[in-house]
Amino acid sequence: MASSHRAVLGLDIGGTKLAAAVVTADGQTHALTVQPTQRHDGPDRILQRLFDMGNSAIAASALDGIDAIQAVGISCGGPLDATAGVLQSPLHLPGWINVPIVAMAAREFDAPAVLENDATAAALGEFRYGAGVGVSTLLYLTISTGIGGGAVIDGRLHRGAAGNGGEYGHIMVSPGGRPCLCGRNGCLEAYASGTSIALRANEAVSAHPRSSLATLTTIKAEDVSSAAVAGDEFAVSLWNETTELLSVAITDLVNIFEPDLVVLGGGVTHAGDALLDPVRRTVLATAMKPAAKAARIQLAALGDAVCVVGAAALAFDYADQESGRANANPSAGTHPPETGTGEPLHV
Amino acid sequence: MASSHRAVLGLDIGGTKLAAAVVTADGQTHALTVQPTQRHDGPDRILQRLFDMGNSAIAASALDGIDAIQAVGISCGGPLDATAGVLQSPLHLPGWINVPIVAMAAREFDAPAVLENDATAAALGEFRYGAGVGVSTLLYLTISTGIGGGAVIDGRLHRGAAGNGGEYGHIMVSPGGRPCLCGRNGCLEAYASGTSIALRANEAVSAHPRSSLATLTTIKAEDVSSAAVAGDEFAVSLWNETTELLSVAITDLVNIFEPDLVVLGGGVTHAGDALLDPVRRTVLATAMKPAAKAARIQLAALGDAVCVVGAAALAFDYADQESGRANANPSAGTHPPETGTGEPLHV
Repeated sequence: MASSHRAVLGLDIGGTKLAAAVVTADGQTHALTVQPTQRHDGPDRILQRLFDMGNSAIAASALDGIDAIQAVGISCGGPLDATAGVLQSPLHLPGWINVPIVAMAAREFDAPAVLENDATAAALGEFRYGAGVGVSTLLYLTISTGIGGGAVIDGRLHRGAAGNGGEYGHIMVSPGGRPCLCGRNGCLEAYASGTSIALRANEAVSAHPRSSLATLTTIKAEDVSSAAVAGDEFAVSLWNETTELLSVAITDLVNIFEPDLVVLGGGVTHAGDALLDPVRRTVLATAMKPAAKAARIQLAALGDAVCVVGAAALAFDYADQESGRANANPSAGTHPPETGTGEPLHV
Repeated sequence: MASSHRAVLGLDIGGTKLAAAVVTADGQTHALTVQPTQRHDGPDRILQRLFDMGNSAIAASALDGIDAIQAVGISCGGPLDATAGVLQSPLHLPGWINVPIVAMAAREFDAPAVLENDATAAALGEFRYGAGVGVSTLLYLTISTGIGGGAVIDGRLHRGAAGNGGEYGHIMVSPGGRPCLCGRNGCLEAYASGTSIALRANEAVSAHPRSSLATLTTIKAEDVSSAAVAGDEFAVSLWNETTELLSVAITDLVNIFEPDLVVLGGGVTHAGDALLDPVRRTVLATAMKPAAKAARIQLAALGDAVCVVGAAALAFDYADQESGRANANPSAGTHPPETGTGEPLHV
């Protein structure tokens, strides 16, 4: 098989959307399909649909000259056990308990499969194929239904001791503030996730009857950002608080890691410059000077395909490792799709 | 030279104390000496005293059968340029501007020399020789005149893009709170450094005339912890606030990194269990469950020698690299004492 046609299947299981694509070693997606998750269907029917999407992608990508996949990469929110290949109890998929997704996918596609936390996979995707090509240390924040994160540190994907690393949504930004699902009060996620932005707006709107948001039955996060851009006073105050608290957490992260790059992805970042500009301005003004000088802040270059492409990157690593092409790294633990080879991850 | 007698010189330049010791490859210090810095002496006289301490340590360690040192490791607070070997403008050493410490030490001791941020060096010291032997990811916090940090992540020392990584003192713990030297308000360092603990006590003591602290002309941080242990109500409230805010920042770090181990060192940790117990209890109760389950929190095992031993660990790496015994790591940048060989750092 020509190197340019090396291909894997990437699958992403989100709370709102499922995604599947064949991904080639240059990071290009082929036959990307996205469908609503329809959570009420439960794991069996949802996974059957996801696998059907995967099979369709494989069939369709044959038109691009891709005649086989080497592996399957799957990304999902946690908690999950990547080593065992099991979805333990994903917060965004109530009722999914100990689903052996890796074994199921391996059987379905007759190929080795690998599982990773979605934000961790996304960090690798952006590092290898997106905004982070050429950098050493990259942090990825997904600002979506919840807020998650992932890190590539000095060229190696960091998973954390428990394998559910990068809980950037649970950085404290307002001690004693809004209750968070994690049990603390005042975490970033309790303010700046899509869910929390919408909740804050719906809670407070009755006190702002002249706001354009008051005409809506249910306010969504994107309504808040759109109204803020349009100059609605109530929306502006909500949005400013959101970007301010996001900046507190990102400044903490910049001070902690001194990264080369912070990448922001997830549905809330569809707000674009309305999100990026104030965050960038505040973080670079308030972080420690050497760290601020070193860090860039950008939106995800891979857009909504970031998790699928990140999962695919892990699948390539796994396939490489299985075929003995990658050097093993004795310090890096037992996780199968080891990217910590001590060599640059860039393809 | 027998392997057990491989030795380097470790030097630490603190704002309060200078330290020097010969350190063997098993992490043992020989002829450790500690002297007051006497900052008013200025860099030339202070460095001459430090070098005299180093020469005395080398002479004295001959009694232990050590007849030569292979390299010199130097730790100091930042900002510094480790790659260039220059102390740019250490915050704790006013008036030290662009001191070429590595060149000076190399000339003095006729051996290769290497410079590192003190908290970064300490992280490596604890990882290789102290509380962190056998772990994968370790965070080190020094709670001293200021608050700094360092990290060994998946077995490799993390320096950050700007080489002054690990600014854990500048994690936000009280938005809009006390002004911090960094320009933000409410950073951890503005509350929990030795300097800030003392300042908070001295500012507030007049409102607590019955406190045992009110009898002191100037309250030091250790007076606060001692009085808190003795049950003084004012001191207890100050101390509880201190450990509470320290716990906020450490919980953030545990959520962010999912480390195996968090090590606390520096003068304020001389309070011992009065510091460790409440911090450990709060962090493990409030961090995300998988991360809390994975993380231990301990005091530095190397005590006040931690920076000297950490600097020595870096000097060993540098000597190994110079002699070609270490494998180069192509992904790890240009810093001379590269510990990122992709192999466990434990000796």
